[in-house]
Amino acid sequence: MSESRVIQRLIEALRVLPGVGPKSARRMTYHLLERNRDGAREIAAALIQAVDTIGHCHRCNNLSETALCDICSSGRRDPSLLCVVETPTDLQSLEQAGVYNGTYFVLMGHLSPLDGIGPDELGMDRLEALLDSGGIQEVVLATNLTVEGEATAHFVGELVQSRGIRATRIAYGVPVGGELEYIDRNTLSRAFSGRRDV
Amino acid sequence: MSESRVIQRLIEALRVLPGVGPKSARRMTYHLLERNRDGAREIAAALIQAVDTIGHCHRCNNLSETALCDICSSGRRDPSLLCVVETPTDLQSLEQAGVYNGTYFVLMGHLSPLDGIGPDELGMDRLEALLDSGGIQEVVLATNLTVEGEATAHFVGELVQSRGIRATRIAYGVPVGGELEYIDRNTLSRAFSGRRDV
Repeated sequence: MSESRVIQRLIEALRVLPGVGPKSARRMTYHLLERNRDGAREIAAALIQAVDTIGHCHRCNNLSETALCDICSSGRRDPSLLCVVETPTDLQSLEQAGVYNGTYFVLMGHLSPLDGIGPDELGMDRLEALLDSGGIQEVVLATNLTVEGEATAHFVGELVQSRGIRATRIAYGVPVGGELEYIDRNTLSRAFSGRRDV
Repeated sequence: MSESRVIQRLIEALRVLPGVGPKSARRMTYHLLERNRDGAREIAAALIQAVDTIGHCHRCNNLSETALCDICSSGRRDPSLLCVVETPTDLQSLEQAGVYNGTYFVLMGHLSPLDGIGPDELGMDRLEALLDSGGIQEVVLATNLTVEGEATAHFVGELVQSRGIRATRIAYGVPVGGELEYIDRNTLSRAFSGRRDV
Protein backbone atom coordinates (compact mmCIF):
# COMPACT_ATOMS: atom_id res chain seq x y z
CA MET A 1 0.00 0.00 0.00
CA SER A 2 1.22 3.42 -0.92
CA GLU A 3 -1.08 5.25 1.49
CA SER A 4 0.54 6.56 4.65
CA ARG A 5 -0.71 5.23 7.96
CA VAL A 6 -1.75 8.72 9.04
CA ILE A 7 -3.99 9.04 5.99
CA GLN A 8 -5.38 5.56 6.53
CA ARG A 9 -6.20 6.45 10.13
CA LEU A 10 -8.16 9.51 9.02
CA ILE A 11 -10.06 7.51 6.37
CA GLU A 12 -10.98 4.90 8.99
CA ALA A 13 -12.04 7.58 11.49
CA LEU A 14 -14.34 9.34 9.02
CA ARG A 15 -16.14 6.07 8.29
CA VAL A 16 -18.04 6.28 11.59
CA LEU A 17 -20.04 9.15 10.06
CA PRO A 18 -23.50 8.03 8.92
CA GLY A 19 -23.70 7.47 5.17
CA VAL A 20 -19.92 7.57 4.71
CA GLY A 21 -18.34 4.46 3.19
CA PRO A 22 -14.68 3.83 2.29
CA LYS A 23 -14.87 5.76 -1.00
CA SER A 24 -16.44 8.90 0.48
CA ALA A 25 -14.08 8.77 3.45
CA ARG A 26 -11.08 8.65 1.13
CA ARG A 27 -12.47 11.52 -0.97
CA MET A 28 -13.08 13.62 2.16
CA THR A 29 -9.58 12.90 3.45
CA TYR A 30 -7.82 13.95 0.25
CA HIS A 31 -10.09 16.95 -0.19
CA LEU A 32 -9.21 18.25 3.26
CA LEU A 33 -5.48 17.55 2.96
CA GLU A 34 -5.13 18.95 -0.54
CA ARG A 35 -7.48 21.86 -0.40
CA ASN A 36 -8.82 22.77 3.00
CA ARG A 37 -6.52 22.21 5.95
CA ASP A 38 -8.10 25.14 7.78
CA GLY A 39 -11.48 23.45 7.34
CA ALA A 40 -10.01 20.25 8.75
CA ARG A 41 -8.71 22.09 11.84
CA GLU A 42 -12.10 23.75 12.30
CA ILE A 43 -13.90 20.38 12.16
CA ALA A 44 -11.50 19.01 14.77
CA ALA A 45 -11.96 22.02 17.04
CA ALA A 46 -15.76 22.01 16.64
CA LEU A 47 -15.91 18.26 17.39
CA ILE A 48 -13.82 18.62 20.53
CA GLN A 49 -15.83 21.60 21.74
CA ALA A 50 -19.12 19.80 21.10
CA VAL A 51 -18.08 16.53 22.75
CA ASP A 52 -16.66 18.42 25.74
CA THR A 53 -19.52 20.85 26.32
CA ILE A 54 -22.73 19.25 25.03
CA GLY A 55 -24.64 17.36 27.70
CA HIS A 56 -28.34 16.87 28.32
CA CYS A 57 -30.91 19.40 29.48
CA HIS A 58 -31.99 18.49 33.02
CA ARG A 59 -35.65 18.97 32.22
CA CYS A 60 -36.22 17.75 28.66
CA ASN A 61 -33.17 15.49 28.19
CA ASN A 62 -32.38 17.15 24.84
CA LEU A 63 -28.75 17.77 23.88
CA SER A 64 -27.75 21.09 25.40
CA GLU A 65 -24.64 22.99 26.41
CA THR A 66 -26.47 24.48 29.37
CA ALA A 67 -28.12 22.70 32.31
CA LEU A 68 -31.49 24.00 31.11
CA CYS A 69 -31.88 24.24 27.32
CA ASP A 70 -33.14 27.29 25.41
CA ILE A 71 -36.63 25.86 25.01
CA CYS A 72 -37.06 24.83 28.66
CA SER A 73 -35.74 28.19 29.88
CA SER A 74 -37.80 30.23 27.42
CA GLY A 75 -40.65 32.22 28.91
CA ARG A 76 -42.56 32.01 25.65
CA ARG A 77 -43.23 28.24 25.65
CA ASP A 78 -46.31 26.68 27.22
CA PRO A 79 -45.01 24.47 30.08
CA SER A 80 -48.41 22.78 30.53
CA LEU A 81 -47.98 21.06 27.15
CA LEU A 82 -45.30 18.36 26.88
CA CYS A 83 -44.34 16.66 23.61
CA VAL A 84 -42.48 13.34 23.85
CA VAL A 85 -40.14 12.62 20.91
CA GLU A 86 -37.56 9.93 20.25
CA THR A 87 -34.53 12.00 19.24
CA PRO A 88 -33.12 15.56 19.14
CA THR A 89 -33.48 15.46 15.33
CA ASP A 90 -37.21 14.77 15.69
CA LEU A 91 -37.47 17.74 18.05
CA GLN A 92 -35.54 19.84 15.55
CA SER A 93 -37.94 18.85 12.74
CA LEU A 94 -40.93 19.93 14.80
CA GLU A 95 -39.21 23.20 15.73
CA GLN A 96 -38.38 23.96 12.12
CA ALA A 97 -41.98 23.23 11.14
CA GLY A 98 -42.98 25.77 13.80
CA VAL A 99 -46.17 23.90 14.62
CA TYR A 100 -45.74 23.52 18.35
CA ASN A 101 -45.38 25.96 21.21
CA GLY A 102 -45.09 23.71 24.27
CA THR A 103 -42.07 21.98 25.80
CA TYR A 104 -40.48 18.61 25.07
CA PHE A 105 -39.10 15.44 26.54
CA VAL A 106 -36.52 13.62 24.41
CA LEU A 107 -36.35 9.87 25.06
CA MET A 108 -33.08 9.44 23.11
CA GLY A 109 -34.41 6.32 21.45
CA HIS A 110 -37.37 4.00 21.58
CA LEU A 111 -38.26 0.82 23.45
CA SER A 112 -36.59 -2.10 21.72
CA PRO A 113 -36.53 -5.20 23.92
CA LEU A 114 -34.57 -7.19 21.32
CA ASP A 115 -31.73 -4.65 21.55
CA GLY A 116 -31.95 -4.61 25.35
CA ILE A 117 -33.51 -1.14 25.43
CA GLY A 118 -36.21 -1.06 28.09
CA PRO A 119 -37.78 1.75 30.15
CA ASP A 120 -34.67 2.05 32.34
CA GLU A 121 -32.33 2.60 29.40
CA LEU A 122 -34.58 5.39 28.09
CA GLY A 123 -34.60 7.20 31.44
CA MET A 124 -38.36 6.80 31.89
CA ASP A 125 -37.85 7.53 35.60
CA ARG A 126 -36.83 11.09 34.65
CA LEU A 127 -39.93 11.46 32.50
CA GLU A 128 -42.05 10.18 35.40
CA ALA A 129 -40.39 12.68 37.76
CA LEU A 130 -41.21 15.44 35.27
CA LEU A 131 -44.86 14.30 35.06
CA ASP A 132 -45.02 14.18 38.88
CA SER A 133 -43.56 17.67 39.22
CA GLY A 134 -47.00 19.08 38.36
CA GLY A 135 -48.26 21.68 35.91
CA ILE A 136 -48.43 19.41 32.86
CA GLN A 137 -51.95 19.15 31.43
CA GLU A 138 -51.37 17.32 28.15
CA VAL A 139 -48.68 15.04 26.79
CA VAL A 140 -48.45 14.78 22.98
CA LEU A 141 -46.92 11.43 22.00
CA ALA A 142 -44.82 12.25 18.92
CA THR A 143 -42.69 9.14 18.69
CA ASN A 144 -42.28 7.72 15.19
CA LEU A 145 -45.19 5.89 13.57
CA THR A 146 -43.13 2.67 13.44
CA VAL A 147 -43.64 -0.53 15.43
CA GLU A 148 -41.09 0.54 18.06
CA GLY A 149 -42.37 4.11 18.13
CA GLU A 150 -45.93 2.87 18.60
CA ALA A 151 -44.91 0.54 21.43
CA THR A 152 -43.04 3.40 23.07
CA ALA A 153 -46.02 5.75 22.67
CA HIS A 154 -48.28 3.10 24.22
CA PHE A 155 -45.92 2.67 27.19
CA VAL A 156 -45.52 6.41 27.78
CA GLY A 157 -49.26 6.91 27.29
CA GLU A 158 -49.98 4.59 30.19
CA LEU A 159 -47.51 6.41 32.45
CA VAL A 160 -49.25 9.67 31.56
CA GLN A 161 -52.84 8.50 31.95
CA SER A 162 -52.12 6.72 35.26
CA ARG A 163 -51.38 10.20 36.61
CA GLY A 164 -54.66 11.59 35.36
CA ILE A 165 -52.94 13.64 32.65
CA ARG A 166 -54.37 13.80 29.14
CA ALA A 167 -52.34 11.86 26.54
CA THR A 168 -52.71 12.51 22.80
CA ARG A 169 -51.04 10.94 19.77
CA ILE A 170 -50.07 12.77 16.55
CA ALA A 171 -52.41 11.85 13.70
CA TYR A 172 -51.88 9.08 11.19
CA GLY A 173 -53.00 9.66 7.62
CA VAL A 174 -52.13 10.53 4.07
CA PRO A 175 -49.24 13.06 3.98
CA VAL A 176 -49.96 16.47 2.46
CA GLY A 177 -49.38 16.22 -1.28
CA GLY A 178 -49.70 12.45 -1.07
CA GLU A 179 -51.35 10.65 -3.97
CA LEU A 180 -53.61 7.79 -2.87
CA GLU A 181 -52.17 5.61 -5.64
CA TYR A 182 -48.79 5.56 -3.89
CA ILE A 183 -49.89 5.35 -0.28
CA ASP A 184 -49.50 2.00 1.49
CA ARG A 185 -52.46 -0.04 2.69
CA ASN A 186 -51.91 0.54 6.40
CA THR A 187 -51.77 4.29 6.00
CA LEU A 188 -54.94 4.29 3.88
CA SER A 189 -56.67 2.14 6.50
CA ARG A 190 -55.65 4.61 9.23
CA ALA A 191 -56.69 7.56 7.08
CA PHE A 192 -60.19 6.06 6.78
CA SER A 193 -60.59 5.08 10.41
CA GLY A 194 -59.38 8.54 11.43
CA ARG A 195 -61.71 10.42 9.06
CA ARG A 196 -63.43 13.56 10.30
CA ASP A 197 -66.54 15.57 9.46
CA VAL A 198 -65.86 18.37 7.02
CA MET B 1 -33.66 28.59 16.93
CA SER B 2 -33.46 25.92 19.58
CA GLU B 3 -30.11 24.55 18.43
CA SER B 4 -27.16 25.43 20.62
CA ARG B 5 -24.37 27.49 19.09
CA VAL B 6 -21.88 24.70 19.72
CA ILE B 7 -24.00 22.29 17.69
CA GLN B 8 -24.49 24.87 14.96
CA ARG B 9 -20.72 25.40 14.78
CA LEU B 10 -20.15 21.67 14.29
CA ILE B 11 -22.84 21.45 11.59
CA GLU B 12 -21.23 24.40 9.77
CA ALA B 13 -17.75 22.89 10.10
CA LEU B 14 -18.81 19.52 8.66
CA ARG B 15 -20.27 21.22 5.59
CA VAL B 16 -16.79 21.77 4.14
CA LEU B 17 -16.65 18.02 3.52
CA PRO B 18 -17.29 17.17 -0.14
CA GLY B 19 -20.83 15.90 -0.75
CA VAL B 20 -22.08 17.05 2.66
CA GLY B 21 -24.96 19.54 2.67
CA PRO B 22 -26.83 21.02 5.63
CA LYS B 23 -29.04 17.95 6.15
CA SER B 24 -26.18 15.42 6.16
CA ALA B 25 -24.09 17.67 8.37
CA ARG B 26 -26.93 17.87 10.91
CA ARG B 27 -27.43 14.09 10.77
CA MET B 28 -23.69 13.51 11.31
CA THR B 29 -23.58 15.95 14.20
CA TYR B 30 -26.47 14.36 16.08
CA HIS B 31 -25.26 10.86 15.30
CA LEU B 32 -21.86 11.60 16.84
CA LEU B 33 -23.23 13.43 19.87
CA GLU B 34 -25.96 10.91 20.62
CA ARG B 35 -24.21 7.70 19.78
CA ASN B 36 -20.51 7.92 19.11
CA ARG B 37 -18.58 10.49 21.10
CA ASP B 38 -15.48 8.29 21.04
CA GLY B 39 -15.74 8.24 17.25
CA ALA B 40 -15.99 12.03 17.25
CA ARG B 41 -12.83 12.32 19.38
CA GLU B 42 -11.02 9.90 17.07
CA ILE B 43 -11.98 11.95 13.99
CA ALA B 44 -10.69 15.11 15.69
CA ALA B 45 -7.41 13.42 16.69
CA ALA B 46 -6.92 11.86 13.24
CA LEU B 47 -7.60 15.21 11.53
CA ILE B 48 -5.10 17.05 13.71
CA GLN B 49 -2.46 14.37 13.25
CA ALA B 50 -2.96 14.35 9.48
CA VAL B 51 -2.91 18.12 9.08
CA ASP B 52 0.17 18.38 11.31
CA THR B 53 2.24 15.57 9.79
CA ILE B 54 1.22 15.14 6.15
CA GLY B 55 3.37 17.13 3.73
CA HIS B 56 4.57 16.42 0.22
CA CYS B 57 7.14 13.88 -0.98
CA HIS B 58 10.25 15.76 -2.18
CA ARG B 59 10.52 13.66 -5.33
CA CYS B 60 6.97 12.94 -6.53
CA ASN B 61 5.04 15.71 -4.76
CA ASN B 62 2.43 13.20 -3.47
CA LEU B 63 1.01 13.64 0.02
CA SER B 64 3.40 11.92 2.42
CA GLU B 65 4.30 11.96 6.09
CA THR B 66 7.96 11.32 5.21
CA ALA B 67 10.31 13.42 3.07
CA LEU B 68 10.45 10.60 0.53
CA CYS B 69 7.21 8.62 0.13
CA ASP B 70 6.90 4.83 0.19
CA ILE B 71 6.77 4.53 -3.59
CA CYS B 72 9.77 6.78 -4.26
CA SER B 73 11.84 5.04 -1.57
CA SER B 74 10.81 1.53 -2.67
CA GLY B 75 13.56 -0.53 -4.33
CA ARG B 76 10.94 -2.45 -6.30
CA ARG B 77 9.69 0.40 -8.51
CA ASP B 78 11.20 1.23 -11.88
CA PRO B 79 12.68 4.76 -11.56
CA SER B 80 13.19 5.10 -15.32
CA LEU B 81 9.40 5.21 -15.80
CA LEU B 82 7.56 8.32 -14.55
CA CYS B 83 3.78 8.68 -14.55
CA VAL B 84 2.35 12.20 -14.26
CA VAL B 85 -1.07 12.40 -12.57
CA GLU B 86 -3.24 15.27 -11.42
CA THR B 87 -4.06 14.24 -7.86
CA PRO B 88 -3.13 11.79 -5.06
CA THR B 89 -6.52 10.11 -5.61
CA ASP B 90 -5.64 9.44 -9.25
CA LEU B 91 -2.34 7.92 -8.11
CA GLN B 92 -4.24 5.83 -5.59
CA SER B 93 -6.61 4.54 -8.29
CA LEU B 94 -3.70 3.43 -10.45
CA GLU B 95 -2.02 1.79 -7.45
CA GLN B 96 -5.19 -0.08 -6.54
CA ALA B 97 -5.56 -1.24 -10.14
CA GLY B 98 -2.00 -2.58 -9.83
CA VAL B 99 -1.26 -1.85 -13.49
CA TYR B 100 1.89 0.21 -13.10
CA ASN B 101 5.31 -0.42 -11.60
CA GLY B 102 7.14 2.86 -12.17
CA THR B 103 7.25 6.06 -10.12
CA TYR B 104 4.98 9.12 -10.16
CA PHE B 105 4.83 12.86 -10.21
CA VAL B 106 1.67 14.40 -8.75
CA LEU B 107 0.80 17.84 -10.15
CA MET B 108 -1.82 18.55 -7.46
CA GLY B 109 -4.20 19.92 -10.07
CA HIS B 110 -4.29 20.79 -13.74
CA LEU B 111 -3.60 23.89 -15.82
CA SER B 112 -6.61 26.16 -15.65
CA PRO B 113 -5.82 29.70 -16.82
CA LEU B 114 -9.32 30.92 -15.99
CA ASP B 115 -8.77 29.97 -12.34
CA GLY B 116 -5.30 31.48 -12.37
CA ILE B 117 -3.59 28.10 -12.28
CA GLY B 118 -0.57 28.17 -14.58
CA PRO B 119 2.68 26.15 -14.71
CA ASP B 120 4.10 28.00 -11.68
CA GLU B 121 1.11 27.16 -9.46
CA LEU B 122 1.49 23.46 -10.35
CA GLY B 123 5.18 23.41 -9.46
CA MET B 124 6.27 22.53 -12.99
CA ASP B 125 9.77 23.70 -12.05
CA ARG B 126 10.00 20.76 -9.66
CA LEU B 127 8.89 18.39 -12.40
CA GLU B 128 11.50 19.91 -14.74
CA ALA B 129 14.20 19.47 -12.09
CA LEU B 130 13.16 15.83 -11.75
CA LEU B 131 13.34 15.32 -15.54
CA ASP B 132 16.77 17.00 -15.57
CA SER B 133 18.06 14.81 -12.75
CA GLY B 134 18.56 12.04 -15.31
CA GLY B 135 17.62 8.37 -15.44
CA ILE B 136 14.03 8.86 -16.69
CA GLN B 137 13.40 7.15 -20.03
CA GLU B 138 9.64 7.47 -20.42
CA VAL B 139 6.98 9.75 -19.01
CA VAL B 140 3.39 8.43 -19.07
CA LEU B 141 0.95 11.32 -19.15
CA ALA B 142 -1.99 10.11 -17.04
CA THR B 143 -3.84 13.37 -16.45
CA ASN B 144 -7.60 13.17 -16.86
CA LEU B 145 -9.13 12.93 -20.32
CA THR B 146 -10.87 16.28 -19.84
CA VAL B 147 -10.17 19.56 -21.57
CA GLU B 148 -7.95 20.76 -18.71
CA GLY B 149 -6.29 17.37 -18.35
CA GLU B 150 -5.53 17.28 -22.06
CA ALA B 151 -4.07 20.78 -22.02
CA THR B 152 -1.94 19.83 -19.04
CA ALA B 153 -0.76 16.63 -20.75
CA HIS B 154 0.14 18.65 -23.84
CA PHE B 155 2.15 21.12 -21.79
CA VAL B 156 3.99 18.45 -19.81
CA GLY B 157 4.54 16.43 -22.99
CA GLU B 158 6.45 19.34 -24.52
CA LEU B 159 8.63 19.72 -21.42
CA VAL B 160 9.42 16.02 -21.62
CA GLN B 161 10.12 15.82 -25.34
CA SER B 162 12.25 18.98 -25.31
CA ARG B 163 14.63 16.97 -23.11
CA GLY B 164 14.73 14.06 -25.55
CA ILE B 165 12.68 11.86 -23.21
CA ARG B 166 9.86 9.68 -24.58
CA ALA B 167 6.35 10.93 -23.67
CA THR B 168 3.29 8.66 -23.89
CA ARG B 169 -0.39 9.26 -23.19
CA ILE B 170 -2.81 6.75 -21.69
CA ALA B 171 -5.28 5.42 -24.26
CA TYR B 172 -8.69 6.86 -25.04
CA GLY B 173 -11.48 4.46 -25.94
CA VAL B 174 -14.56 2.57 -24.91
CA PRO B 175 -14.29 1.47 -21.26
CA VAL B 176 -14.26 -2.25 -20.52
CA GLY B 177 -17.86 -3.40 -20.23
CA GLY B 178 -18.99 -0.28 -22.08
CA GLU B 179 -21.95 -0.61 -24.43
CA LEU B 180 -21.56 1.41 -27.62
CA GLU B 181 -25.17 2.55 -27.33
CA TYR B 182 -24.31 4.57 -24.23
CA ILE B 183 -20.89 5.88 -25.20
CA ASP B 184 -20.61 9.54 -26.21
CA ARG B 185 -19.67 10.64 -29.69
CA ASN B 186 -16.20 11.95 -28.81
CA THR B 187 -15.19 8.72 -27.15
CA LEU B 188 -16.45 6.67 -30.09
CA SER B 189 -14.54 8.92 -32.47
CA ARG B 190 -11.35 8.42 -30.40
CA ALA B 191 -11.98 4.68 -30.19
CA PHE B 192 -12.08 4.50 -33.99
CA SER B 193 -9.09 6.71 -34.66
CA GLY B 194 -7.14 4.74 -32.05
CA ARG B 195 -8.06 1.32 -33.46
CA ARG B 196 -5.37 -1.37 -33.65
CA ASP B 197 -4.72 -4.51 -35.67
CA VAL B 198 -6.04 -7.62 -34.00
